[in-house]
Amino acid sequence: MSVTTPRGFRASGVVAGLKASGRPDVALVVNDGPDHHAAAVFTANRVEAAPVTWSRTVVADGRADAVVLNSGGANACTGAPGFQDTHRTAEHVAGVLGVAAGDVVVCSTGLIGERLPMDRLLAGVDAAAAGLAADGGPAAAEAIMTTDTRPKTAEARRDGWAVGGMAKGAGMLAPALATMLVVVTTDAVADAGQLDRALRAATRTTFDRVDSDGCMSTNDTVVLLTSGASGVAVADDDLAEAVTAVCAELARALVADAEGAHHDIAVEVRSAASEADALEVARAVARNNLFKCAVFGGDPNWGRVLAAVGTTAAAFDPSTLDVTMNGVQVCRAGGVGEDRTLVDLSAREVHVVVELHAGDAGVTVWTNDLTHDYVHENSAYST
Amino acid sequence: MSVTTPRGFRASGVVAGLKASGRPDVALVVNDGPDHHAAAVFTANRVEAAPVTWSRTVVADGRADAVVLNSGGANACTGAPGFQDTHRTAEHVAGVLGVAAGDVVVCSTGLIGERLPMDRLLAGVDAAAAGLAADGGPAAAEAIMTTDTRPKTAEARRDGWAVGGMAKGAGMLAPALATMLVVVTTDAVADAGQLDRALRAATRTTFDRVDSDGCMSTNDTVVLLTSGASGVAVADDDLAEAVTAVCAELARALVADAEGAHHDIAVEVRSAASEADALEVARAVARNNLFKCAVFGGDPNWGRVLAAVGTTAAAFDPSTLDVTMNGVQVCRAGGVGEDRTLVDLSAREVHVVVELHAGDAGVTVWTNDLTHDYVHENSAYST
Repeated sequence: MSVTTPRGFRASGVVAGLKASGRPDVALVVNDGPDHHAAAVFTANRVEAAPVTWSRTVVADGRADAVVLNSGGANACTGAPGFQDTHRTAEHVAGVLGVAAGDVVVCSTGLIGERLPMDRLLAGVDAAAAGLAADGGPAAAEAIMTTDTRPKTAEARRDGWAVGGMAKGAGMLAPALATMLVVVTTDAVADAGQLDRALRAATRTTFDRVDSDGCMSTNDTVVLLTSGASGVAVADDDLAEAVTAVCAELARALVADAEGAHHDIAVEVRSAASEADALEVARAVARNNLFKCAVFGGDPNWGRVLAAVGTTAAAFDPSTLDVTMNGVQVCRAGGVGEDRTLVDLSAREVHVVVELHAGDAGVTVWTNDLTHDYVHENSAYST
Repeated sequence: MSVTTPRGFRASGVVAGLKASGRPDVALVVNDGPDHHAAAVFTANRVEAAPVTWSRTVVADGRADAVVLNSGGANACTGAPGFQDTHRTAEHVAGVLGVAAGDVVVCSTGLIGERLPMDRLLAGVDAAAAGLAADGGPAAAEAIMTTDTRPKTAEARRDGWAVGGMAKGAGMLAPALATMLVVVTTDAVADAGQLDRALRAATRTTFDRVDSDGCMSTNDTVVLLTSGASGVAVADDDLAEAVTAVCAELARALVADAEGAHHDIAVEVRSAASEADALEVARAVARNNLFKCAVFGGDPNWGRVLAAVGTTAAAFDPSTLDVTMNGVQVCRAGGVGEDRTLVDLSAREVHVVVELHAGDAGVTVWTNDLTHDYVHENSAYST
C-alpha cells in the first residue's frame, strides 16, 4: 500500500543525516507516467515556507514529475537563502531524474527558522534516487515522519485502478490543512482539472476538518499525482470518492497519532442552519482548551461545550441546545440532562454531538484532548 | 483598599457553605449613596448565565443599590429554574436591605450546569448583610475567589475622591471580558452616562486585553457604582483615568494568578496599520498553544510566533516581520535574527514584541504559558 499502490510510481526513503536521531529523512516519489498531471493544495498561512512558495508555482501548470520531501527541517522563515535552497534541491532532483526542475514538487517539515544542511540533503537526494523502487512507498512514508510515532499510509483499490497515499503530521494540526505533508497517487486516467476538483472535494471534508491543536502550519502541502498507467478513464465522482477515502483514512491516522493525545474526539454538530454554521460551532468546541482538558481528565464537562458554542455567531437558541457525550444526553434544552456520571470516557475515541435545532446541516471535526504529554512534547521540541 | 476605599460603601464576605472547602463564598457590596448610579459590562457569550441576564436588566436604568456575589456555583445552563434562583436572591437581598429587587446586581461564579443550594445561599445573604462594614472590602474580595490563590483588590486615590475595586478570576480568561467578576466603586460625583463611558473606556484596554486561555466565560460581569459621597464632581477624562488605573491593576493581577501559569506573557504588536489589526495579531499569538508551550519550556521559539501571525488578515509583508523576545531580536525581516540562545525566559514576566511595519498602531495583550499545571487544574476541576 501507500503511494506505490497505483501503477506508474516509484518511491524511496533514505537516511540523509538531517535528523539528529539518524532516522530516515529524505523521501522521493517519482511519476513514471505515461501521464504527469498533478494538483495540490497548500497551507493558508501567510507566513509560508520556501518549499510551499516553490511548489505552488510547480503545480500551477497541472504537471509534476516528482516530489522530494525532507523531514528534519521546515525551511520556513529562512528568507531568500531558504528559497534558493529549495530551488537548488529541485534542480538537483531534476538533474538526477532527467526531468525539468519546474516539475519537481518540494516539501519540508521540521523546525522553523533554520537553514537546511544542503550538502547532506543533496547527497540524500542522490541516495533516494538510487533507491527508487516500485514497492518503495512504505520507505518513503517512514522518511517523512517527525514526531509521528508511526508511518501513515492508505489505499483505495477500485476496478482496474487505485489511489494510494502517505502522510506525516502529529502537531500543529489545524484547518486550512494540518501540519502535514501528504502525497496521493493514482493510476487512473484523469486530467489536471479532474485531479484538482477531486483533491479539493477530498481535503474540504477530511484534512480541513482535523483541528488537533488550532495551530496552522507554514508548510502544509497535499499533492495528488496521476500516472494514467491503468489506462482506465474515471468519472469525476468516482475519482473524488476514492481520493476522499484515502484522505479520510490518512486524516483519521493523523488524529490518532497527534502529539501527546490520549483521546481522539469527534465533535459532531447537527441540525445547523448551514454547513458554515456547523463548522464554526464544531471548531469553537474543538479549540476550547478547557473542554479538551476535561476530556483528558475523563470529565464530561458539558458546560464547557456550551460556553464554547456560545462564542459563535451561528444560528441557535441557547435554550434549545442539546449535547450528547458518548451516547448520554448530558445537556438537554440548554440545561441539565441525563446524569453526567453515566458518561464513560475511558476509550480512546470520544463522540460529542451538539444539536443546534436550527436547520438540516451538519459536520464532524476531529480534535484531540489537551494533555500533560502535549505540553511536554511541545515545550521540549526544539531543546 | 478595595471596594470600600471610596466613601459611601459597605461590604462583607461570609461562609455560606456553597464551597466544599468551607471558605467564604458570599459577598455583599452596598452603596449607601447619596447617589446610586451604576454602569456595567457583561460577557459577550451567547450562552450567558442567569445572573448575567438578570443584572443586564438591573443596570439598564443606570441605578444599582447593591451587588450580591457568590462563588461555589455559576448558575449557568440552569434554565428557567436557575433564573428564578437569581431573582429570588435579588428579592431576598432587597428585603434585608430595604431596597428594590430591581436595583440589586447578582453575580455568580463556579461550576456550570448545577443549581445553587438556595437555602444556604439565602442564609448567607442574611449573614453578609449583618456583617456589612465600611472596611469590609477585603472580606468581600476573599469571598468571590474560586481557583484564585489570592484576593485581588486595587485602588486609585485622587484629590478628594477615590476609585476602588475587587476582582476574581483565574481560568476561562478571554476577551470580551475574562472569567471574572469585578466590582469597582467610586465616591466621585458622576452620572450614569459618565460611569458608562468611563467603564467602557477602561475595560476596552484592560480586561478585554487579557487572554489567558482563549475560553470565554458565561458569567463575566464588571460593574461600576458611584455613591457621590465625596461631593467632588469629576470630568469624564479624570474619571476614566482613575477607573482605568484600577481595572488595569486588577487585570494584571488576574494574569499573575491564572490557573497553572508559570509565566505572564505580554504580547505587544507594534507598527500595525490599525488597532484592529494589532489586536488580531496579538490575540492570534496569545492563543497559540504551541507558542505558549514553548514559553513554558523556556524555548524562544519565534517560528511559532510567526506561524501564528501568518494566520491573520492583518496588513503586513511576511518578509519584513520582526520579533523580539525579552529584548533579543530573534527574528529579523521574517528570518533568523539574533542568536535565540541569548533569550532568558527564566523570569515570570515575558515580553514579546511583533513589529508589523505597516503603520503606527499598537496594542498589548496579556496571556499565560500553557503548562502541566494548567492541564492538571482543568482536567480535575469538577471531579
